[in-house]
Amino acid sequence: MTIEQVAISESRGPLLDPSEGLRVYADDRAHLFHSWAAQGAVSPIPVAGAQGRHFWDYDGKRYLDFSSQFINTNIGHGHPKVVAAIKEQADRICMIASTFANDKRGEAARLIAGLAPGDLNRVLFTNGGAEANEHAVRMARVHTGRTKVMAAYRSYHGGTSTAIGLTGDPRRWDNDAAGNSGSGVVHFFGPYLYRSHFHATTEAEESARALAHLEQTIIFEGPRTIAAIILESIVGTAGVLIPPPGYLAGVRALCDKYGIVYIADEVMSGFGRAGAWFAVDHWSVTPDLITFAKGVNSGYVPLGGVIISDEIHETFRDRVYQGGLTYSGHPLACAAAVATISAMQEEGMIDNAARLGEEVIGPRLREIAAAHPSVGEVRGTGVFWAIELVRDPETREMLVPYAGVGAQNAPVNEVVAACKQAGLWPVYNFNRIHVVPPCNTTDDEALHGLAILDEALKIADSYVTT
Amino acid sequence: MTIEQVAISESRGPLLDPSEGLRVYADDRAHLFHSWAAQGAVSPIPVAGAQGRHFWDYDGKRYLDFSSQFINTNIGHGHPKVVAAIKEQADRICMIASTFANDKRGEAARLIAGLAPGDLNRVLFTNGGAEANEHAVRMARVHTGRTKVMAAYRSYHGGTSTAIGLTGDPRRWDNDAAGNSGSGVVHFFGPYLYRSHFHATTEAEESARALAHLEQTIIFEGPRTIAAIILESIVGTAGVLIPPPGYLAGVRALCDKYGIVYIADEVMSGFGRAGAWFAVDHWSVTPDLITFAKGVNSGYVPLGGVIISDEIHETFRDRVYQGGLTYSGHPLACAAAVATISAMQEEGMIDNAARLGEEVIGPRLREIAAAHPSVGEVRGTGVFWAIELVRDPETREMLVPYAGVGAQNAPVNEVVAACKQAGLWPVYNFNRIHVVPPCNTTDDEALHGLAILDEALKIADSYVTT
Ligand SMILES: Cc1ncc(COP(=O)(O)O)c(C=O)c1O
Ligand SMILES: Cc1ncc(COP(=O)(O)O)c(C=O)c1O
Repeated sequence: MTIEQVAISESRGPLLDPSEGLRVYADDRAHLFHSWAAQGAVSPIPVAGAQGRHFWDYDGKRYLDFSSQFINTNIGHGHPKVVAAIKEQADRICMIASTFANDKRGEAARLIAGLAPGDLNRVLFTNGGAEANEHAVRMARVHTGRTKVMAAYRSYHGGTSTAIGLTGDPRRWDNDAAGNSGSGVVHFFGPYLYRSHFHATTEAEESARALAHLEQTIIFEGPRTIAAIILESIVGTAGVLIPPPGYLAGVRALCDKYGIVYIADEVMSGFGRAGAWFAVDHWSVTPDLITFAKGVNSGYVPLGGVIISDEIHETFRDRVYQGGLTYSGHPLACAAAVATISAMQEEGMIDNAARLGEEVIGPRLREIAAAHPSVGEVRGTGVFWAIELVRDPETREMLVPYAGVGAQNAPVNEVVAACKQAGLWPVYNFNRIHVVPPCNTTDDEALHGLAILDEALKIADSYVTT
Repeated sequence: MTIEQVAISESRGPLLDPSEGLRVYADDRAHLFHSWAAQGAVSPIPVAGAQGRHFWDYDGKRYLDFSSQFINTNIGHGHPKVVAAIKEQADRICMIASTFANDKRGEAARLIAGLAPGDLNRVLFTNGGAEANEHAVRMARVHTGRTKVMAAYRSYHGGTSTAIGLTGDPRRWDNDAAGNSGSGVVHFFGPYLYRSHFHATTEAEESARALAHLEQTIIFEGPRTIAAIILESIVGTAGVLIPPPGYLAGVRALCDKYGIVYIADEVMSGFGRAGAWFAVDHWSVTPDLITFAKGVNSGYVPLGGVIISDEIHETFRDRVYQGGLTYSGHPLACAAAVATISAMQEEGMIDNAARLGEEVIGPRLREIAAAHPSVGEVRGTGVFWAIELVRDPETREMLVPYAGVGAQNAPVNEVVAACKQAGLWPVYNFNRIHVVPPCNTTDDEALHGLAILDEALKIADSYVTT
């Protein structure tokens, strides 16, 4: 049996030397500085291997990956076609400067442009999602000659200055205070019917009122000062917020009306996550710029980028685009993107993600919602779902507060710990558990993970106060 | 014969189908958006392959790489040990979230910390150099509770908002105008004896006066408002400016005196480029933070990072570090770093770079300087050299102006075109040609490239007016 077969058949990882895990842990704690963490509180599990929808530690404990890591391994771990493409490309050429043309770079750009809607025909490649948003904003500012950018509260756009400045999430707060956030950003509220900022009770009302709020904000900020509106097509980390019908089309119309560039951040929502190549496809909306990363090559090699409309490309035909990076269009990363897109097509992964959402995850989550008083709402599409946990289903009081600290988060921490204990690795954010497995998750895997969640949510129920 | 042998023995690339090159070119022009360029002016050579210190196009034309691409392939192309390590790691695990410990990630951090001076014991990994500088500045701001950062004119620190705001190069100008540059930066002048800002005539004088200028600027900006000073240890793109003896130690002392974090940007100067692991090693100076990218794994997989002192790490022991990215500590990139560092050690590449600079490139460049009236100065160390071209050796008028456009740049463009024609790929910036080959360049390769340069510089001589 191969390692993979052992792992899957026994629901355990392969037999390994646990002392090796201790050595890996020791190196980490002695030498690694962790993102978004107090270093003294970090205690990472050493991962020994990963295959398909599973990964395992050195003690043989195996986890079903309902996180896709940072919601990026959309094809799961160790996909043989993509691994083979990386190895083949490593033998050919790993890196060549973007000064030159390169076959895989050009092919990746052609494939991505082919998947994108409308006349979004050109790609600037970056290393990741934050850089993609930095460049999109830069293009929009030069294209319009304006500087302000509008972005939503409840959003995440990345960790570099401009990207964190756009972000509507507590991770921005300390960066604002320290002088790290990019300037010129105006935040507004997007649609979120379950906690409507606009006192709406139907999707249609939520959509109309959110658009009215956006237009009012544009008018009071001064339309001729606004370069771009950036929006996650489906808000990811901040809640898997599916825009109500008409909302994105309305944003497109407002951008047209006021000469504003519409940037769709599809870093998380793109490449199958939402059961479509891009989430905007659900509403047939064409932005001016689409930013991507993560799913484009499942993160097997760092890659991100901006897909650019003909009109914005035209602005930079004779005018120098003042931006760039050493690894733009990295051949190894682009070869992985070509192989990932091909594998997703050949294996029908987008359809599988859509079907999973409609026929397996959605229905099962609705059952879970009905059975657990702590579940206020479940929502999602494809392999992109959120379970919103409440202390009181009537008032919708969050099970743990927004940006809570320490013991305040106990109820959710306990649910998450129970999931991990049972071999499920979920994603969580404040009062939400997200269900974001790879696009090629099987029905059995999805149902197995959801059964563990179902059980773990009893802990959340015990905190319900009504 | 292998492809490599054919390429090297015949001074030609292997026989390929030129129509394939046309297809690669067509994809590029239809779908790729290029960094730092007017898109209509881009006409990239399609590169078919690369090995060692050479790359070649589809017409069989082969180039000796005196650029190391974007000064990143410090071990040359297709290094067998690093390629093997990438392939092995691709089979094991490409990407696992930085939430987890991973063997290659920990090993890379341990090796890098081991190479760094003093108590720089921890590493935050990023995808590239710009992101590394973003994070270093963020750490410094939180660590000090101050916001301003001082950076040099004549510098490049990357393309994201904070990084381009730090940059002292014309690429910042349009970003300032468009509102893209990070704020809170104060620029000062560094040492550069050949064009002394301080009217100095000796290195000792230049060093002392540059330090006095820096201290005056600190005093007038307000020491308690300044979080960090960021400096390329050897200024790269802006001229291979070697700091005079005492300068970096003086910067260290000023930082200590005023409680300012000293950030050494070693993105270009690190990992062998300067004939040392880090350029600061030449002067035994220990910064508080070192940023790196490029040479750490020769760019085979995108990687960068910040090496962090114990004191700054301590600041984030109990306090959350508010920064991060999806691909921090990417296992494939870290495996390439481990293999690159090992290969450099096993094959003595740092020593070879130092020796090449001292015994081959330096002496030959000084001969070239003596023979060509257009050469105002040559300077460098290791495989990190600049040839400064002048129109008039007396007045030192630049052969082409700073930030010149179009026809103004003809003299340098002609020299560069002659080099390319003869099969040498150089780097140039304004009035300078840089000699920045891989660390494992052979003496014969170096001498061959320098002979081509020697010949091409006759064109520059024809523009000399005295
Ligand atoms: C919507 C969105 N945009 C941007 C980013 C930033 O991407 P990266 O972490 O690759 O910089 C993320 C990362 O989670 C994201 O979810
Ligand atoms: C000194 C220095 N810092 C930072 C950078 C930016 O690195 P990257 O292009 O990987 O973002 C560069 C790139 O050339 C550099 O030379």
